[in-house]
Amino acid sequence: MKKVTLIGSGNLATRLSLAMSATGQFAFQQVYSHTPEHASDLANRLQCTWTTDAKAIRPGADLYIFALKDTALENIAAQVPANNGLWIHTAGSMPMEVFRPYASRYGVLYPLQTFSKQREVNFRQIPLFLESNSTESAALLQEVASLLSDNVRFLSSEKRKNLHLAAVFACNFTNHLYALAGEILEEAGIPFDVLLPLIDETAAKVHDLSPRRAQTGPAVRYDENVIGKQLAMLTDAQTREIYRLLSQSIHQKSQES
Amino acid sequence: MKKVTLIGSGNLATRLSLAMSATGQFAFQQVYSHTPEHASDLANRLQCTWTTDAKAIRPGADLYIFALKDTALENIAAQVPANNGLWIHTAGSMPMEVFRPYASRYGVLYPLQTFSKQREVNFRQIPLFLESNSTESAALLQEVASLLSDNVRFLSSEKRKNLHLAAVFACNFTNHLYALAGEILEEAGIPFDVLLPLIDETAAKVHDLSPRRAQTGPAVRYDENVIGKQLAMLTDAQTREIYRLLSQSIHQKSQES
Repeated sequence: MKKVTLIGSGNLATRLSLAMSATGQFAFQQVYSHTPEHASDLANRLQCTWTTDAKAIRPGADLYIFALKDTALENIAAQVPANNGLWIHTAGSMPMEVFRPYASRYGVLYPLQTFSKQREVNFRQIPLFLESNSTESAALLQEVASLLSDNVRFLSSEKRKNLHLAAVFACNFTNHLYALAGEILEEAGIPFDVLLPLIDETAAKVHDLSPRRAQTGPAVRYDENVIGKQLAMLTDAQTREIYRLLSQSIHQKSQES
Repeated sequence: MKKVTLIGSGNLATRLSLAMSATGQFAFQQVYSHTPEHASDLANRLQCTWTTDAKAIRPGADLYIFALKDTALENIAAQVPANNGLWIHTAGSMPMEVFRPYASRYGVLYPLQTFSKQREVNFRQIPLFLESNSTESAALLQEVASLLSDNVRFLSSEKRKNLHLAAVFACNFTNHLYALAGEILEEAGIPFDVLLPLIDETAAKVHDLSPRRAQTGPAVRYDENVIGKQLAMLTDAQTREIYRLLSQSIHQKSQES
């Protein structure tokens, strides 16, 4: 059993710690969160103690997992009393070296997935991207990651930034397009769920075809008649600009190769 | 057996006619396409004759299915010799009344899905939206649609336009974001398929949570540090503008309610 202290209680902290707990291979020691309700809720589920004071984080754990907003990470890391555990963070866009002033053994475990507290995900299929400051840390990190997922590899901080940026496009921006589509349907009194087979097929298609080959619709055909009519239907200026820009980008990219 | 003439040989024409053929309830009479190779290929698969001359489309079929680009639809419909069949088109943004000058029985069957010639899809799950110019046509259309799908309903031309616009956001624009994400990964030498679990989960999530509740990432947190760093990584001006605009829209919509 590896002893774990969790620093953070957000979406990722919640889903990662519960997945770790479910393997039966990790014993949680302590949960830190600046919000007492969040710290105590998650500590209850992980059967451990909690604190809202980063300076009260105890030594003795094998792993210190920092799952925090980027803006909080360095500030909190600076407050944690020195210890001999392996410190890891889970952030796509933060370099591993953020830990250098505060710890001797450190690394990164970045899960490429979208997490919500209320939704369980199957960790075994999530790609985990690892980085560590020594061979010894690499071995421990690999061991921990392999207990969680079948899809584990090492990647530098520099390349992890690309991964995070790609994920913003493929997940956060995509989800926002679902939201905008839902608003358009709502205006016509049509329920969102009529879109689900289309959303599912759009995702499934790129398992077999490259996104470029999978593309269909008025923009790639450059059907100016439809594009013009659809632009005119959009009453929100910002949504209209999104439509215009994405249609233009689809058309340009389709001409490139 | 219903006798069918197919006008068109593109992605939708191909997938719809093959799905109809597979039910064993339709006998294809003739395929029209302006490209002889496309017409003959599809006619071979449907075991029927073909033509590249719309004026040579024969009478005697129960259904005339026009699956054409919007820009070609009216022009081709005007050339088809008058007959007593039910004329239907499959276009999201074209009114049913486009057929009024040319036919006495007409309607629309709009499948809300993305189709590629080379990819089979399960029609039974595809929402089909119907419209017709008479009760008698409605009954026939409903019968035809129900042979193909378990998800059939009637919708006006006006509301079908909203549906089509929503589909452009949820499918064509989403697929383009996958393409942009793929380009970002390619620059770092990371294969596209690491994104597939994230793409799948992003789609699966909105079966259970509304897109607004499902949203995660730097834009909804308004993490200016990450947003600024990610904007700086994007070297293509148009892609940078897409990032900026979508981040702003995510943030604004999250503040609204």
